[in-house]
Amino acid sequence: MIHTLEWTDRGVRFLDQRKLPNEETYVTCQTYGEVADVIRNMVVRGAPAIGVAAAMGIALGIQGSKARTAGELEREFDQISDVIAKTRPTAVNLFWAIRRMRETFSTLRLLPVAEIGEALVEEAQRMHAEDIAINRRMGGYGATLMPASGGVLTHCNAGALATCGYGTALGVIRSAIEGGKKIRVYADETRPFLQGSRLTAWELVRDGIPTTVISDNMSGALMRQGKIGAVIVGADRIAANGDVANKIGTYTVAVLAKEHDLPFYVAAPLSTIDLETPDGTRIPIEQRNPEEITHIAGKAMTPEGIQVENPAFDVTPAKYITAIVTERGIARAPYGPSLAKLRRDESPQATAAS
Amino acid sequence: MIHTLEWTDRGVRFLDQRKLPNEETYVTCQTYGEVADVIRNMVVRGAPAIGVAAAMGIALGIQGSKARTAGELEREFDQISDVIAKTRPTAVNLFWAIRRMRETFSTLRLLPVAEIGEALVEEAQRMHAEDIAINRRMGGYGATLMPASGGVLTHCNAGALATCGYGTALGVIRSAIEGGKKIRVYADETRPFLQGSRLTAWELVRDGIPTTVISDNMSGALMRQGKIGAVIVGADRIAANGDVANKIGTYTVAVLAKEHDLPFYVAAPLSTIDLETPDGTRIPIEQRNPEEITHIAGKAMTPEGIQVENPAFDVTPAKYITAIVTERGIARAPYGPSLAKLRRDESPQATAAS
Repeated sequence: MIHTLEWTDRGVRFLDQRKLPNEETYVTCQTYGEVADVIRNMVVRGAPAIGVAAAMGIALGIQGSKARTAGELEREFDQISDVIAKTRPTAVNLFWAIRRMRETFSTLRLLPVAEIGEALVEEAQRMHAEDIAINRRMGGYGATLMPASGGVLTHCNAGALATCGYGTALGVIRSAIEGGKKIRVYADETRPFLQGSRLTAWELVRDGIPTTVISDNMSGALMRQGKIGAVIVGADRIAANGDVANKIGTYTVAVLAKEHDLPFYVAAPLSTIDLETPDGTRIPIEQRNPEEITHIAGKAMTPEGIQVENPAFDVTPAKYITAIVTERGIARAPYGPSLAKLRRDESPQATAAS
Repeated sequence: MIHTLEWTDRGVRFLDQRKLPNEETYVTCQTYGEVADVIRNMVVRGAPAIGVAAAMGIALGIQGSKARTAGELEREFDQISDVIAKTRPTAVNLFWAIRRMRETFSTLRLLPVAEIGEALVEEAQRMHAEDIAINRRMGGYGATLMPASGGVLTHCNAGALATCGYGTALGVIRSAIEGGKKIRVYADETRPFLQGSRLTAWELVRDGIPTTVISDNMSGALMRQGKIGAVIVGADRIAANGDVANKIGTYTVAVLAKEHDLPFYVAAPLSTIDLETPDGTRIPIEQRNPEEITHIAGKAMTPEGIQVENPAFDVTPAKYITAIVTERGIARAPYGPSLAKLRRDESPQATAAS
């Protein structure tokens, strides 16, 4: 069991993903400001995990409040949410989690401050448990799409480390393997943060899942050699039309999949679907520190005076996407109606949208 | 002026490309075995530079020979060539250079040993000078293909550091800029050896050419954003049908260029064209040490027990290639006849083949 993030008596505890795979160390946050820092610094990353981290950060902030009136507490809630909302702009699960915590807060605001704090802690813990259950259901749907055997390529880390456990894209792979499929995972190393080589490889090796790490520029050649039968990735935000923002490089993999007639799947919880954003052009793309490109392991890899670009995400247009796997079923093109239908369905037992 | 490799009184001197961009240090080889080592260890790399390094290595070996008869010297020549031929399998310029040195040797074999040595040293130095002249001519042809302004993507390093000076793909860019074109180079960092961020960036910054380093997985997104107007790369071997072996990741860039309707150019001397290899499936692809993937700057980036692949090159089928720029003109599809015609033409002043 991987404990990506957890509520503990001493605060919110995060597995420090900057240190993997060499060190398995934890960071415990006792204030919401510390939680904002660990999201910003990528101690924790992955859209679903960021969402639950945000919820736990808010719970931590309200639990520690000195407010004496409902009005004071509400102003504090707003301030905490603002700080957390500004950590990372692309993963919509962050904003979804803040909204859900705000809705819970609204129903509680006439209770004593201490009771509100406890209820928000419970809500954040519920979101943690739900996330794992959601991934399990998503895995069940997605496993049906996986090939019976052969190579499946994934980019970045959409695994247990990107969620509260089990994973989205890697949850689908885990579920397929639990169901007897013989899959070898090809993991793009995923520069600059190396989520593939450091994180995906780490969690799959722990589970004994056959995994081959490749540099990001190898996937085209391997597809051409017939070593890859399908691609599955996670998502940071899915627009209403099915355009998907995900880790930089995802779009390149999608183009390669199209060129080689391979299915390209996205696995993400419904909280990643942003029906208010009509298409991918409206998704804000975070630019991160140039040092992630210019330096590796503290060592300069570029000459002084060089320019770099470091967008953390790119957008894959819906036309490249074979199917989107959610906890309520599988959406296919046209994504406008299929995603909207999945979001409308209330029952988690509902089946595929199209 | 960049001195990638040079014949000196004390041996063959190589700029140590493993240490760039942080240190500008040189390695001087006094035996052919040391030259074989620096080719194998990538102190020197790039197909044209490897060719001239091989020629200088042979010259060094024969110059140091203790052979007393023509027969003894010939056996020594064979042995030296064998050692050098086994350093790297893909760049055909290595075998081209060995063949050229052997032809020169054949015409000299009745001379005294010391004179043969001197003549081979001169031949290797001639190849060095020719390589720079070839790149200048190639630059002139290729510059006509470059856009008047905007971004040009290159992968790996096909620059002064991959040749004896000026460069193939980067020679074309230099020539276009000398002719007044306003180009910004986007340089893929080119994992695992980082030839783009360490070498291409280093030599272009020295020349004051605007350069932006990106990780290999960003080029698709930048093309989609319209930031890239053309792609130009070098080659390690071009088969008779126009299929091109080049640094791993080149094929991915070619697929992306096709998807975005961008021209994809290859710049390489005629010595890179291997008319004896009918197509890309017959080009041997070197697999390098897994540590190039698992470790960066000496630090483990993957968990223990992980598998990796590390092919140094991939093959881009001719159908993705808009044109091949050589020192005798520009070849276009169908490459079978256009490449054969360029190779048949004797005059370096001959113009475009098609």
